[in-house]
Amino acid sequence: MASIRQALPAGFRWAAVKAGIKASGRTDLAIAVCDTPAAAAVMFTRNQVVAAPIIVGRNNLRASSGKVKAVIVNAGNANCATGVLGIRTAEQTCSHAAALLGCEQQEVFPSSTGIIGVPLPAEKIVAALPAAIERLSSSNSAAEDFATAILTTDTRMKVAQAEVVLNDRPVRIFGCCKGAGMIGPQLGPPHATMLVYLFTDLAIGPVDLQALLGPAADKSFNSISVDGDTSTNDTVLLLASGACGQAWETVDQEAQTSFRDALFGVCERLAHDIIDDGEGVTHVVTLQISGTADYAAAKKIARSIAHSPLCKTAWSSADPNWGRILAAAGYAGVPFDPAHVSIHIGGLPVFEDGTRSLHMDEKAVHTRMLQREYEIAVSLGNGPGRCRFLTCDLTVEYVHINADYST
Amino acid sequence: MASIRQALPAGFRWAAVKAGIKASGRTDLAIAVCDTPAAAAVMFTRNQVVAAPIIVGRNNLRASSGKVKAVIVNAGNANCATGVLGIRTAEQTCSHAAALLGCEQQEVFPSSTGIIGVPLPAEKIVAALPAAIERLSSSNSAAEDFATAILTTDTRMKVAQAEVVLNDRPVRIFGCCKGAGMIGPQLGPPHATMLVYLFTDLAIGPVDLQALLGPAADKSFNSISVDGDTSTNDTVLLLASGACGQAWETVDQEAQTSFRDALFGVCERLAHDIIDDGEGVTHVVTLQISGTADYAAAKKIARSIAHSPLCKTAWSSADPNWGRILAAAGYAGVPFDPAHVSIHIGGLPVFEDGTRSLHMDEKAVHTRMLQREYEIAVSLGNGPGRCRFLTCDLTVEYVHINADYST
Repeated sequence: MASIRQALPAGFRWAAVKAGIKASGRTDLAIAVCDTPAAAAVMFTRNQVVAAPIIVGRNNLRASSGKVKAVIVNAGNANCATGVLGIRTAEQTCSHAAALLGCEQQEVFPSSTGIIGVPLPAEKIVAALPAAIERLSSSNSAAEDFATAILTTDTRMKVAQAEVVLNDRPVRIFGCCKGAGMIGPQLGPPHATMLVYLFTDLAIGPVDLQALLGPAADKSFNSISVDGDTSTNDTVLLLASGACGQAWETVDQEAQTSFRDALFGVCERLAHDIIDDGEGVTHVVTLQISGTADYAAAKKIARSIAHSPLCKTAWSSADPNWGRILAAAGYAGVPFDPAHVSIHIGGLPVFEDGTRSLHMDEKAVHTRMLQREYEIAVSLGNGPGRCRFLTCDLTVEYVHINADYST
Repeated sequence: MASIRQALPAGFRWAAVKAGIKASGRTDLAIAVCDTPAAAAVMFTRNQVVAAPIIVGRNNLRASSGKVKAVIVNAGNANCATGVLGIRTAEQTCSHAAALLGCEQQEVFPSSTGIIGVPLPAEKIVAALPAAIERLSSSNSAAEDFATAILTTDTRMKVAQAEVVLNDRPVRIFGCCKGAGMIGPQLGPPHATMLVYLFTDLAIGPVDLQALLGPAADKSFNSISVDGDTSTNDTVLLLASGACGQAWETVDQEAQTSFRDALFGVCERLAHDIIDDGEGVTHVVTLQISGTADYAAAKKIARSIAHSPLCKTAWSSADPNWGRILAAAGYAGVPFDPAHVSIHIGGLPVFEDGTRSLHMDEKAVHTRMLQREYEIAVSLGNGPGRCRFLTCDLTVEYVHINADYST
């Protein structure tokens, strides 16, 4: 289990309490508060069906011009497909938190994750908020409490940190996330049941912050899939408190790049941890697609392979069945010539120039595939398009987890 | 197990033998021969990667102007991703059969189904052909032999028949197919490991025959999915012997419609049987999508739901989790307003106007879902677009079947 070891970004406090929403009785209400309202950048799910907190969160960010004083997250109930009542519940949560914290309602950002279609009991959140606010702290354990309360079918807390020095000043990034099933994010700019919260103490405005978040999220959270089911609640929220005293616009190109890299690194680790903790996952597979006309074509091929039940079941038994990989690439809707395709598994050739590799050592490939993590590289030609995409196997355990229903 | 009870179309003979390609040792070489070359219509997979027999079959049909004397099918090996050698193997099979039958090489149509990427032993087919030809017969049991030898992971033979009277003459249709996994057909006109063979004794040219096959296949074979994995070998072949003596062009509109309906009926029954015999299937679900802008949008929504692991696992336990259905519709890439969506399962309302149906009786819905077959109706608005799509649940058994690998 990852735990918080480095210093946290200044200007934030965290807490979590039990509001009685999770059936397990665990902590389920997480709050993060900024000492002074933080600049916010956000990406939401592109699903046509979006949960009430996403509608309310989007409206609030617009009304506050991208400023956030507090984030209120409940786990155990997605507040999705709950109609007008669901919207009112999310708004009520925000207004109640605003009154307690002495800020504007639109400076509160709500998030929910859990079951779809069941009314979220606003009164439980309202009743639990004072205790949560009382516990607010900038300590490592408080941040861990926050990162733990947001979990649902996850088996462990997922956090990542980075520190970069900009103009001699340390700037810190802290990220945490949840998500194990219904993971196939397709995030759009200002539009998330993957929830990701990123905190930094950089001083930066919402527009510049959004410009940083987009590319980092696209190559991390938008490049992973457990089951391809894009959630109605996916949210990635990045908050910048400014408390480190380092203003973005006074930082030179090189230092900006180092911050971008650090932010991407945090996103990438969290994205990896989501797959690693995916429902029933026994193998984490990194797809390296190359040789397509462009990035979009490479990503289409990657998604097709990542969502193929036949590929995913073969991976679960370390079966070097490259025919299924080739077939899944073939129905992605991207034109290519099979005679120019080559496939490597764990660095070993299995398919070259339209036929089984002469160098294929089935036993050796099988052995590589017994490792928990390995790479599958698919080269489709000479084009400049390439992408990296993280996915996993499909196991009996996944089916058990998601078919667990009793009246 | 379906068996052949009605009279078969005249002008065809069938046979099957053991060529030693299936590891099980069952019959694996099936041949069908037309007394005089039949008019042929065909649809192949739209996968970018196509098997050698599809390349050879396409070339042969072009060279013969849509005439087919014989169909040679082997099961147990897909002859796919086998390079130039695979093409030669398919050609060799055709030329050998042509020599034995006294026809042109291009009048022989080859098909293969089974494992991808393993060289197909041409010598086994060549050695078995004389015995197969010797057994050729127009009897019901010979047609059943054909329909049985083409099976792979299927648990049973799939056949369907129809007879229509056109201008006082009986015209017959016989169809058979195989397919249980890697089923997500996307067939294109003259472009299939679903294999479908349709035989009729109607007298009709290849162009008119193709015009009949397209629409029938689109709303049957192109509207089903077990796992969404579109095969490299999918083929639907329709042969017309002309032996009934009834020429298509002398048939009036009404009678033409009755033949079209009969053909579609046969296709629909075979398509249903593929899903019913799908790998690990315990529930057959008919999706009725309506209210979209057009047919294509409805089909996109249907495919998204049909391929969602979360929907499919919920169906396996008769879980009335309509939230997963709604979410899968939402990420299909088709715009709609959730407030105008309603969902019925087995005729019972579960979701209406953007929220859980007030009339939802969870226990009653669960009971309906315990039936082997039921309908899920999703209405997305007031548009004229609608489609019917057949799919199934995802079970532990499916994972076992496809993860069965040992070195």
